[in-house]
Amino acid sequence: MAYELFYWTGIQGRGEFVRLALEEAGADYTDVAREKGDDVLMPLMKEAKTPPFAPPFLRDGDVLVGQVALILHYLGPKLGLVSADPVEALWTHQIQLTMTDFVAEIHDVHHPIGVGAYYEDQKEEAARRAEEFRADRIPKFLGWFERILSKNDKSGYLVGSALSYADLSLFQIVEGLNYAFPRLMKASSKDWPKAMALSSKIRQRPNIAAYCTSNRRLPFNKNGIFRHYAELDAAD
Amino acid sequence: MAYELFYWTGIQGRGEFVRLALEEAGADYTDVAREKGDDVLMPLMKEAKTPPFAPPFLRDGDVLVGQVALILHYLGPKLGLVSADPVEALWTHQIQLTMTDFVAEIHDVHHPIGVGAYYEDQKEEAARRAEEFRADRIPKFLGWFERILSKNDKSGYLVGSALSYADLSLFQIVEGLNYAFPRLMKASSKDWPKAMALSSKIRQRPNIAAYCTSNRRLPFNKNGIFRHYAELDAAD
Repeated sequence: MAYELFYWTGIQGRGEFVRLALEEAGADYTDVAREKGDDVLMPLMKEAKTPPFAPPFLRDGDVLVGQVALILHYLGPKLGLVSADPVEALWTHQIQLTMTDFVAEIHDVHHPIGVGAYYEDQKEEAARRAEEFRADRIPKFLGWFERILSKNDKSGYLVGSALSYADLSLFQIVEGLNYAFPRLMKASSKDWPKAMALSSKIRQRPNIAAYCTSNRRLPFNKNGIFRHYAELDAAD
Repeated sequence: MAYELFYWTGIQGRGEFVRLALEEAGADYTDVAREKGDDVLMPLMKEAKTPPFAPPFLRDGDVLVGQVALILHYLGPKLGLVSADPVEALWTHQIQLTMTDFVAEIHDVHHPIGVGAYYEDQKEEAARRAEEFRADRIPKFLGWFERILSKNDKSGYLVGSALSYADLSLFQIVEGLNYAFPRLMKASSKDWPKAMALSSKIRQRPNIAAYCTSNRRLPFNKNGIFRHYAELDAAD
């Protein structure tokens, strides 16, 4: 039976981390809201016996799983996208959870006051938060991925000797940052050569390349997590 | 061999969610930095083969695990604090991950502009963020826990028929919110009767009660995640 992915239409958003794993594996899946509309989401969040707090969530028969990192932890072994070694699988999950933290921070740069107000109503606060984000947080997170890749230098992947879902998520983060902060990334990408090389390698994988040129891959836009507001990017 | 917990001294912080599980289970553990100082933390984050991004992390022999929710997912079966049923264990992990998101939001109320600046230098922004937090986010998260407890009404626990680490974490969140937002919690706790009842039940468990009166339980303070600033709380 096909996996059913539930996520808001109109944006890549957090659902994209799950899509990339399903696409890389060539898995049979339905992007349910894109077929039936966003109205399919709320009933499950109310009526399910184990109601997810927010999209994305995945239904696999009787099992309903929410939280991106947990969906990937669940799918990893089924899609061949995580090591069979339990300690390596644990480490992959830990990396993904740290990516979750990073993604939340990336979102909050344009919404420091909260999700309820428009960006336009928190531009000054966003500009202030973006300073620290550019100066400290981007280097801290990207530097961490770079350090992990340096410690695992033989394979070029984040964990062990093979591709995992965490590598696909790193690709998505790099793509998103390139879109949202092009000047900053252009100026700093030399500082994370291994992360950039891994990201380029993922981009060229046949299933990912095919997906990225398909109409299933929505373009980045100003409703998603990664948003390009020139005033939040580094100076020229 | 004793579990080794690594976390900053001086605050309960995120480490407390792990401590409560270890204490409830009567596990043999060392709170390493409290014995040797905070200087023990950084070397592991630099030199470990799988370097955690930030404290807390747990060392169990050769295994090093970071991220609160993952530490609890790892310890759960060993401490008898999660269901042996894999789908229930997955659900417990999902609840804990949503608590992680909630805890990050609770922290960001007093630090909306970033962790690098003092609260005193972002008081206006914090006041603005706190409005949405009180009006929308607290009800959304506490309402979600309440809904889960209503769906699992027979046991009074979050998952299945027995205590799990997620119940202990809910207790910690309620205690922290009571400290940080006493007026808001006093006014709203009638809206989440099941969550409040579970929290009270946890507080009375012998090992938790003993721990909470021991000197291992630090008081809440203005350096931790849960901070009491009267100006961020609800009006009288």
